[in-house]
Amino acid sequence: MAEKFISDRNLKFLLYELFDVEQLLKYPRYADHSREVFDMVMQTAMKMGKDLFKPILSEMDKNQPEYVHGEVKVHPQVRTIMRECGAGGWIGATFDSELGGQQLPEMIGMMVPTAIFAAANYSGSVYNSLAIGAAGLIASYGTQEMKDLYIPKMLAGEWQGTMALTEPQAGSSLTDITLTAEATDQGYYRMKGQKIFISAGEHTGVDNIIHLVIGRIKGSPPGVKGISLFVVPKKRIEGKGGLVFNDVNCAGIYHKLGYRGAPITQLAFGENDECRGWLVGEPNKGLGYMFQMMNEARIDVGLGAACISSAAYYASLEYAKERPQGRKLSSKDPLAPQVPIIEHADIKRMLLFQRAIVEGSLSLLIQCSLYHDLEKVSTGEDHENYNLLLELLTPVAKTYPSEMGILSCSAGIQILGGYGYCEEFPLEQFYRDVRIHPIHEGTTGIQGMDLLGRKMMMKKGKAAQLYLAEVRQAIAAAQNDPELKNFAAALENALGQLEKVTAHLFGLAAKEGPEMFLADATLYLEYFGIIAIAWQWLKQATAAQKALQGSLNEADANFYNGKVYTCRYFFGYELPKIEGLAIRLLSGDGLTVTMKNDYFEE
Amino acid sequence: MAEKFISDRNLKFLLYELFDVEQLLKYPRYADHSREVFDMVMQTAMKMGKDLFKPILSEMDKNQPEYVHGEVKVHPQVRTIMRECGAGGWIGATFDSELGGQQLPEMIGMMVPTAIFAAANYSGSVYNSLAIGAAGLIASYGTQEMKDLYIPKMLAGEWQGTMALTEPQAGSSLTDITLTAEATDQGYYRMKGQKIFISAGEHTGVDNIIHLVIGRIKGSPPGVKGISLFVVPKKRIEGKGGLVFNDVNCAGIYHKLGYRGAPITQLAFGENDECRGWLVGEPNKGLGYMFQMMNEARIDVGLGAACISSAAYYASLEYAKERPQGRKLSSKDPLAPQVPIIEHADIKRMLLFQRAIVEGSLSLLIQCSLYHDLEKVSTGEDHENYNLLLELLTPVAKTYPSEMGILSCSAGIQILGGYGYCEEFPLEQFYRDVRIHPIHEGTTGIQGMDLLGRKMMMKKGKAAQLYLAEVRQAIAAAQNDPELKNFAAALENALGQLEKVTAHLFGLAAKEGPEMFLADATLYLEYFGIIAIAWQWLKQATAAQKALQGSLNEADANFYNGKVYTCRYFFGYELPKIEGLAIRLLSGDGLTVTMKNDYFEE
Repeated sequence: MAEKFISDRNLKFLLYELFDVEQLLKYPRYADHSREVFDMVMQTAMKMGKDLFKPILSEMDKNQPEYVHGEVKVHPQVRTIMRECGAGGWIGATFDSELGGQQLPEMIGMMVPTAIFAAANYSGSVYNSLAIGAAGLIASYGTQEMKDLYIPKMLAGEWQGTMALTEPQAGSSLTDITLTAEATDQGYYRMKGQKIFISAGEHTGVDNIIHLVIGRIKGSPPGVKGISLFVVPKKRIEGKGGLVFNDVNCAGIYHKLGYRGAPITQLAFGENDECRGWLVGEPNKGLGYMFQMMNEARIDVGLGAACISSAAYYASLEYAKERPQGRKLSSKDPLAPQVPIIEHADIKRMLLFQRAIVEGSLSLLIQCSLYHDLEKVSTGEDHENYNLLLELLTPVAKTYPSEMGILSCSAGIQILGGYGYCEEFPLEQFYRDVRIHPIHEGTTGIQGMDLLGRKMMMKKGKAAQLYLAEVRQAIAAAQNDPELKNFAAALENALGQLEKVTAHLFGLAAKEGPEMFLADATLYLEYFGIIAIAWQWLKQATAAQKALQGSLNEADANFYNGKVYTCRYFFGYELPKIEGLAIRLLSGDGLTVTMKNDYFEE
Repeated sequence: MAEKFISDRNLKFLLYELFDVEQLLKYPRYADHSREVFDMVMQTAMKMGKDLFKPILSEMDKNQPEYVHGEVKVHPQVRTIMRECGAGGWIGATFDSELGGQQLPEMIGMMVPTAIFAAANYSGSVYNSLAIGAAGLIASYGTQEMKDLYIPKMLAGEWQGTMALTEPQAGSSLTDITLTAEATDQGYYRMKGQKIFISAGEHTGVDNIIHLVIGRIKGSPPGVKGISLFVVPKKRIEGKGGLVFNDVNCAGIYHKLGYRGAPITQLAFGENDECRGWLVGEPNKGLGYMFQMMNEARIDVGLGAACISSAAYYASLEYAKERPQGRKLSSKDPLAPQVPIIEHADIKRMLLFQRAIVEGSLSLLIQCSLYHDLEKVSTGEDHENYNLLLELLTPVAKTYPSEMGILSCSAGIQILGGYGYCEEFPLEQFYRDVRIHPIHEGTTGIQGMDLLGRKMMMKKGKAAQLYLAEVRQAIAAAQNDPELKNFAAALENALGQLEKVTAHLFGLAAKEGPEMFLADATLYLEYFGIIAIAWQWLKQATAAQKALQGSLNEADANFYNGKVYTCRYFFGYELPKIEGLAIRLLSGDGLTVTMKNDYFEE
């Protein structure tokens, strides 16, 4: 069984060398921290990943949650994980100190542990991620009373938080949410309705579960304009902290392809008309609030996919270095000893592919996290600009790692051949686990429409302009390096093509309406994603080239040379894929709009 | 649960309209057959698929084979399947009548039932496929005594056949086979050694198992030049048909990601020095013989992948037609009823993708089968030409459906969203099952080297020339149709590019040797495969356009229009992928050859 699941060397490279997280220390919010603190966070998280999460990776997969009489029994270690994440300050890492948090930057407090835990054991890592998101929503929009009631228990890992959006009849169509909230004169609402696919919506690892639920106050307008946000605890607090069952019933769990260590539940609210919910913020503004959590969850999903792919990469790398098979093509002597399969170019190609996906994705995700941190500490136009960049890149940072994670873990299986297909090795689990990511928290199709139909157009295209300027800054930094100047030029060409493709699609929108405009939005997202990852690889290679100028020990020299090679791989093998996509995106024949349903018969 | 798993309408289109299987009736070998016989074969196979194979698809997945004291317990229906396939003449369908076969063309006797059974239940379908392959090898190269001893029992479905190549220390490297055969003066060899990953190498569904094993006669030259082929029964026949255990022990089975209904075994031959094997054909020529079976198995693998993808396609199509969710983008009224998701362009795109893969692959596979049939009935240069075409296209017909099958089944999951990830729907099983195909019977990497390093070069490139002529014939037939002339031109351009890319790579071979030449052979195979499927789609669209000239009922008009649309999809969305691949294949910077292993550290 492979031991390594993520490279802390690489995380340090990204955080310190590429994105200079220390720049944040100058802001009052983070002034109490230091590089030493950041290092310690990473070191401790690596230890927890190794000792707490990784050892039960396969166990949690093989012993799925069980639904017994309305309860969901999960692996006993889930309780330990939640308690240790609470006690160690991991759930509250980025929260304000006045709420009991550590007030760490997102890049450190959120990205580092989420990445490390997810790489060690994705299913095990989602419990506290969900608690963080739900508590964060209460922190942002809840009343002081809500904060006092819920946040301490949630940050302590005693109470689970959830995000309850999906309903059976609505699926991705949030317009069609019907869970109802009836006002009472007691300050609460009477909740009634069903939610499906709710992660960690019920389980034995915690003492209570706090659902952040979207629903409709009776009499609200139809569609998304009538959606409000509520806190609905499984057990509500009455009197001096006594807990009373709040009529939230778990009706069942799903049996899934992968991601089996986490229970995905069906919930019934108010079956006995005894379910109370408390409005968060103003009525009918719930979807906007929820999207704070949703956007963070989308980054988490991208990160989860990148980190499962990371574990898959190291597992297949270890195998490739150890497994002898065949000889170099230039060697014709059948009596010569066999070579480890890493010596074969095709195996190296697959390893480079995996690494390019993993480290390119991580880089983009930490880039987003930097924008998030800078948004938090800046004001005025800067604040808006960082927010726009983060908003624009969120569907990309969610989708590229998720979609490519499938291919990356599949390449990992392929490296192991028949053994990759067997349960004795972890690859087949990674391949199953990673398949959830293009689905949950908004499918790839939804992300494509978000990017092209909303984000590229918002504020008259300002986000897109800011983004192009960011990429061109990276190109300018690279173009004088003789090793990188061809890549800088290739990326500049890609940007020019991106502008052309985007203008063409906007033209379609004006002339032919939204169906034609968005018909290939998924492909546009794929196209945009490849260019975004090329940007990140150019940045990484630029930093690596700079480091290679200095005097380095062998391990560091290998590391930076590996970065430059992987950048070359990306520009040589991945970036050219935009050519075919551009041909398609520029053709706009409306094939999928005009295809009749009946033509699928037979 | 989706009912439909394959379209017999489409099979008829391919067999009768596109490839004119009736042309074979003029040859003496098939003169006793008729269109009515072919129709009946298909009808009966469809009924068996529906009644015998499909009902246990999920059961066989959930109740995997169990290894108990050297025995492998499989689903009790495996015995029924084998017996019915035997009694119904399915195992012997393409065998000579003098051997007890039906003497049907491959296109009918092999492709039709294999496709239908595999689409219904892939794991359930491999038992008889393996028996067919092994019996075929005995029929081709065995002595009369072997034929008499084994073939009747194998064709009756009473005895299993296997193909035993892989060994623990060798994997894909057949050069390193070490299983030994020691000659005796009794006419048999004493066998000793291990084989791994042997499909159906031991199970309770048959009374005996006949292994076709490659090994080395003591004193043979090293490498592939010293490999011989043997028949090694699990129980050997002594005296008047009595069966005596032949010291072939099953040491265990693999627990796999998918394809769980079929046991993949580890075998130990001659642990007690009591294992007898009989040489097939001449000593040291075993690999050549084995490749008859292997080549057929590769076509079977491609067909299996295409057919799993077919079942996935119909399952997601059914869901897409029934599941209401969201509204057309042009509709802003949240109170309007929701539409079935097939109305969304992105869903249609995914369905078209699935269909393009499934029917494009099936078409290429039946094309190969036609070459196989024509090879059988022709002589002289024709015989050689059909053989060359089949040899050239075998790695393509194995790999394109296998690799694209993963993406196709993944798209099927995506159409169902969260439900696609759940065990209540069949998609997740298809996604697991189909992942084996790029691995077994020669990985994709092996196929790539076979295509570029061997097949494109053999007979001074004659196979490649024949292939180009075949494609150009299809272009000529399409280019006068105004609907198709752009596609004909696009394919002609692609062929020109293919010639350029191939010449470039041959140049690399001459200048820089085999490592550089074959470094991107896998990508070359992908590239070649896309063009080959475009060829098949152009042929299908040409036939459909012709049919659309006539007066048609509504179902037929929909079917042919669907064909034309799927062709448009392929040329609009899939063929452009060759542009990015060509850029890579023409660059030849040897990245994966020069990348140092140490650069992967950290």
